[in-house]
Formats: sequence, structure tokens, C-alpha cells
Amino acid sequence: MSKANDPSLKSWIEVELNSDFPIQNLPFGIFKTQSSSPRVGVAIGDQVLDLAILNKLGYLDDLKIDNAIFTNQFLNDFIALGKQTTNAVRERISHLLNSNTADLRDNKEARAKVLQYISNVQMQMPVRVGDYTDFYSSIDHATNVGTMFRDPNNALLPNWKHLPVGYHGRASSITISGTNFHRPKGQTKPSETEPPVYGPCKLLDFELETAFIIGKGTQLGESISTENADDHIFGMVLFNDWSARDIQTWEYVPLGPFLAKNFASTVSPWVVSLEALEPFRVPGYKQDPKVLPYLEYTGEKNIDITLDVFIQPENAEETIVSHSNYKFMYWTMEQQLAHHTVNGCNMNVGDMLASGTISGPTPDSFGSMLEITWRGTKPVKMSDGTERKFINDNDSVIIRGYCKKDGLRIGFGESRAKALPAL
Amino acid sequence: MSKANDPSLKSWIEVELNSDFPIQNLPFGIFKTQSSSPRVGVAIGDQVLDLAILNKLGYLDDLKIDNAIFTNQFLNDFIALGKQTTNAVRERISHLLNSNTADLRDNKEARAKVLQYISNVQMQMPVRVGDYTDFYSSIDHATNVGTMFRDPNNALLPNWKHLPVGYHGRASSITISGTNFHRPKGQTKPSETEPPVYGPCKLLDFELETAFIIGKGTQLGESISTENADDHIFGMVLFNDWSARDIQTWEYVPLGPFLAKNFASTVSPWVVSLEALEPFRVPGYKQDPKVLPYLEYTGEKNIDITLDVFIQPENAEETIVSHSNYKFMYWTMEQQLAHHTVNGCNMNVGDMLASGTISGPTPDSFGSMLEITWRGTKPVKMSDGTERKFINDNDSVIIRGYCKKDGLRIGFGESRAKALPAL
Repeated sequence: MSKANDPSLKSWIEVELNSDFPIQNLPFGIFKTQSSSPRVGVAIGDQVLDLAILNKLGYLDDLKIDNAIFTNQFLNDFIALGKQTTNAVRERISHLLNSNTADLRDNKEARAKVLQYISNVQMQMPVRVGDYTDFYSSIDHATNVGTMFRDPNNALLPNWKHLPVGYHGRASSITISGTNFHRPKGQTKPSETEPPVYGPCKLLDFELETAFIIGKGTQLGESISTENADDHIFGMVLFNDWSARDIQTWEYVPLGPFLAKNFASTVSPWVVSLEALEPFRVPGYKQDPKVLPYLEYTGEKNIDITLDVFIQPENAEETIVSHSNYKFMYWTMEQQLAHHTVNGCNMNVGDMLASGTISGPTPDSFGSMLEITWRGTKPVKMSDGTERKFINDNDSVIIRGYCKKDGLRIGFGESRAKALPAL
Repeated sequence: MSKANDPSLKSWIEVELNSDFPIQNLPFGIFKTQSSSPRVGVAIGDQVLDLAILNKLGYLDDLKIDNAIFTNQFLNDFIALGKQTTNAVRERISHLLNSNTADLRDNKEARAKVLQYISNVQMQMPVRVGDYTDFYSSIDHATNVGTMFRDPNNALLPNWKHLPVGYHGRASSITISGTNFHRPKGQTKPSETEPPVYGPCKLLDFELETAFIIGKGTQLGESISTENADDHIFGMVLFNDWSARDIQTWEYVPLGPFLAKNFASTVSPWVVSLEALEPFRVPGYKQDPKVLPYLEYTGEKNIDITLDVFIQPENAEETIVSHSNYKFMYWTMEQQLAHHTVNGCNMNVGDMLASGTISGPTPDSFGSMLEITWRGTKPVKMSDGTERKFINDNDSVIIRGYCKKDGLRIGFGESRAKALPAL
């Protein structure tokens, strides 16, 4: 276990009890301000630590990191240094921010240079995503969808429990939290007997997901074992895989979702390292039937991450619509990565692999409006009295996530975006 | 019509009659040599013109292009200059190589610096592919597959004639011609009643495709009309979408092909500009039923490109197994691009959009072994006497393509790769 994870650590920076970013988290992100270009930062409480300036001031000198790594619009080059280095940076920052370490604490001038409030900076996409893959690894989600659209008695397709089903998605339309988008237009077929029509999507939905970011690439032909998978995973973010259900229904047979998904996805800005999440590991879902040997793994590979989804209508309060958890996943990240590379498919640093919609076993933990309202048959009430079957124009959807155990809370911040009216 | 397309043009460089690269073509690529780093080149006959040196020597001075654009490992920055500039470069090169232009022709020293034989250079991936999309736009291919796997009487799925079906593929595993790969391993289900098994793919196949490369990007939310689509298409390459049929069968329902495709794709190195292909435009496939207005187009939008596929067993001669043509496509590139962006999906320079397998109406023009041998029931004979149902270890598959009209031939070179035994 990393020293930086010690729950007894305290920072000289005041961190509120319910903050996502205590000294045990130290997630990495890219931020800019009105006066500064994009650079690498670390979140601590409600502040961001500027690693470019911290390095320039000499606080990371012995780690010998070229400052171009930190004055960068993406984390890719930093991540590519390897876990030995990135973990050493996290440990160093933990040390520097520790209430017992005087170096930065007692240097008022340096502190003023390296710290600013998150509310005053603009967060950017943390990584340049090379390839993006979306899995379909929550058994409750797959069962719900199979029950609704196929056969309640055979809800899961024959391959589902044998391999983590996944498909390629669009990297270009992954955007950072706060990036609003217009309701997509496209082709749908509302009537069985009439030809398809063109127009704005009528069944806009969110999908509650997380994604992990590749920290160590592979060459074409190489495979990653479940045992080595964690070496290749840098960290995790929250991920909203916005979906146009009516476009999806008409287009997705036989080659999968395409325009129903590639108009927007929204990620949270702070990449929480796998190391920071280690204290929250829990046993994986019991897999029956037994998986093939290349998908077997040992140890506790699920993670207990509380995941909440809120809808905020224009000029109204948020209403929580889902209270789920990453631990409901049937397939682990390690299995997903082993499967993805079993054929020699190469991974690059910055590639993003999303979980698929994460639903729990009860309706209050379902991860999409499709499931929550059961295809619109059970609308949910907002705090302003209005009802939702799917997402309305000018609704914001917010995903928040955090781990909590023995008084320690490690959070992800949020993924937030508003669905503007169709253009 | 571009001046550079004039069929009467002759170059002072000797170009064989059946060359893919007469002065009317001038495709762009990236090459390196043992002594030089990657740079932009243009093919002429059996030689390559080094644009980095050409520019340095002043032959492109008035075009004012920073030489970093040419001393680059990818064409993306060059393409991003825009068609006005890239077409001007093509026109300038056409002028410089014209038999009536003395500037370079009579400067022996400069000629020695800017020209070398293609056989002496190593071609590289022409572009850094951001996102890769594969369509499914050949009606004969879709009909063949539907007939084999679904229902001969309803071979085409209901959406097929209403929209160009497509899906996202893996960009990282797209490789340049000459890059061999190992037969993929993975999960298949050979028996209906037994559990799936793990091992090398048994039904390795090629798919004869072309791909076009985005030359002008869009912002999230923007759509491209069929009318404006050509402004966004830089050029085309040959594309072999290697496929593992047994992996595909087991994995692809419901979210589409994944590991069956992402272990390797092979592109030809020279990007033939859309401008060089203009003389070979032919009318599009007659589409019935009528498509929705956003997919309508005017003008001749198919292209008459002969496409041949050869299998070369180890230490044996090539055998032609398919003689197809791009003009058999039901959906045009312009429609594909309009559809892909109708929902606001953003495009980036260098994105690659492939056609899907291009089959013609007769068995000799089918674009995959699946179709040619009709699921292995009709093996094809190689010139060495052996038979093929699918692709064997150490077989090379070569795709070649060219346009020919009124004595003018514009070729693509080749996409070639060998399937090595599984690791």
C-alpha cells in the first residue's frame, strides 16, 4: 500500500470533511486560467496545485522531469513516464502537502504561486484519447436491456457471461465536464409500417459509467494478462455515455451503436489514480459459469465506488435519479483489458476504456433513464414537480462518484453537461 | 477539372505505361530512408519526390509552407493546410515534373537530391488516424452475408437501404502495407452445445475495402452536407480489413464486431487525392427506396476503381481471387460523411472512413473469402495447386487498385501483409 494512502495523513491545506480531494487522493488533471496556458495540476481540497510551477520552483528537482511534461495540454506525456515516476510524483506531493512538512507550508511566496482555487480555473480534457472502447459489463444493466428488448426468460445473450462484450466508440466527441451539446438529429423509425423519418432525437438518455485510462501501451501482437493489467491502468474518471435511444433502435442491428452514441460523451476532469483507489478494492462478482483461463484472476478486483446521477432542469434544483456503485460490475477492468488484448490489439497511453452502464440490482440503482423509467412507462418526478421519461432540452445531467471507508473519502468530482435544444 | 489531370501531360521522368503513378496522379505519402527521417513524398513512376528537400531548395517558395510540414512523420499537418494549398502543391509538382518545364529537369544536382527510387525507401503510415469508422455499403456484400447468415429472402436488414450502416473500429491497429501480423487468438464457439474455447482463429479472412481520409475537420455539433462533403475528403487509400470470422460470429451480437477486426488492418501507403480521381467519377447506384433529403445528392459520385485481390502462399506465385470495383458501392462517400455527421459528430483531419467490403454482383468480384468460397464450401485453387477456404499461415494478401480511362491510368499501389502463425 502506498504511503500516500495512509488515512491518518493530514494536509496543511484545509480540506472539508466531505471533499472529494483529501491528501489521500491527489488526482491529476489539466487546467488553464485566463493568464496561463494548459498545464498539469493536482486537486487538493478546493484548490489545484500547479505542477509546472512546483517543478520550476525546484520542489520536484530530484525526480528530473522536463517541465514540458507539465506545461502540456494533455496528461499523456506525464502518464507515459511510467508508474514508477507518476507514483513518485504523487508521493512527493503527499509529502509536500503533509501538515508536518514545512518546505512549502512555510513558504508563503511559493504557496501563492503554486496554489489556486479550482473555482478560478478552467479544467480541460485530461488526456488526448487515441482509441475509446465501451464495454457492457454490468449484469443488471444487460439483464434489464435484454428483458425489455428481447426475452425476459433469456435476457442475457449466450456470449455475455463468457466474455466482456465491448465495442469501439468515437474518441473525437469525448468532452470535458461542462461542455454542453445540442440534442442530436438523425434517422429514426417511430412506426413499424411507415418509412424512417429525420429529426431531433426524442429519447435522449444518459448512461452512468466510469472509464479507465491506459497508462502503459503495448505493441501490436502483445497481450496483457489479468495479473499484469493493473500495471497498464493509470486511473479512472466518471463517464456519461450520452445515448439517443430512438436512433440506436433503428441503426444498431447488425453492427452496433454508432450515431446513437458518437454525438457526445462527458468525462470528469480529475483522473483518480488506481493507487488512490486501492484501499477500496472489494471481491469481484461471483462468475458462473467459470471463465476461460485467460480471463481468470486472483485477488479483490472490484472497487467500491458510490455513483450518483442527478438531473437538474433549467433554473431548478438537482434531483437524484440513480444511486449505484461500481462494485456491481460483473467483469473487472483487469478482465476487460485482458480480453481486449487477447488477440494482440495494441493499447496506447491515453486510450479510454469505459465500463458500460453501471446498474445495480434495484430500480433506484439503475444507470440510465431507459431502465429507471422502464422505457418511459414509469416517469420520475423532479424536485420542481415536472416529470421525466428521458432527458429534456436544457436538462443538465450530473454524475458524482466517491469511495468511502473508515472515515476516508476519495472522490471523483463530477461529470456535468447540459442537453441544449437541437440546432 | 484540375490542370494536373490533363491526360496529355508527360513528365521528363520516364513512367512506364502501366505505372500507378503517372504525372496525372501525384499521390502523397510518408517515407524514410536509412539516412533520412520521415518526410512527405510524392510518387512519380517508380520514384519518390522528396517535398522536404524540394521546398528547402526553393521550388515551392511562393507557396510559403514551413518545412516542418514536410519533415513530418504524418501527412496530417500538410492536409490541414487546406485543399487550396495542397492542390496548389499538386499543381506545382505537376508543373515541375512536366517534360516542358526545365527548372528541375535540367538541374542535375537538384534532381539527384529530390528524387529516389521507391524501392530504396521505406513507406510509413501516411496519417495519424484519430478515429476510424468502417461502413457496410456494398449491396452485394451485405446481400451475400445476409443470405448466408440470416434469410436469403430477406437478406438485407430493414435499415440497410435507408442509411449507410457503419460502426467504429480501432485506429491503433491500422498498419502500413508490408506490416505482417500474427494470426489472432481469441474466444470462439465451434460447437452449439459445448462451452466456448480459446485458441488461434481458424477462419482468418481479408476484406477488400478502400478508405477515405478527412481533409477538413468539423466542430462538435456541425454537420456536413452531401454537397459539401468533397471539401472534407482529402483522398483515398486501399484498405484490408482483416477479419477473424469465428471470433466475429461468437462476439458480435449485440454490439458489433470487436476483437474479430481490431488485431490488424492494412492500408496502402500513397494517398490518392480526390482531385486525381475526378476524371473517373461515374453515376451512383440507383437507390430505391428514395433516401431521406439529408442523404440526397446530385452529380456523379461513384468512382470507377478496379480493385483486385491476390493471395500469395509462402514461396509461391500470387493467385488472383477477386476482381471487383469501387463503383459497385450502394452508398457514396459523400452520403457516408453526411450520415456520420448528421448528429453533430465531429471530424478531425486524418480520420479514416472505410467503405466496408466491396463485392460486385458476380462470384469473381466478391470481396472476402467468406463470400468467394461461400463459407468454405467452394474452396479456391492457388497457382501452386493448394486450396484455400480462408487464409492460411504465411499467406500474403495483396490488394491493388487503379482507375483507367482513355489511356490514362491512376493507381493506388498496393496493400500487402502476411498472416504469420499465431504467437
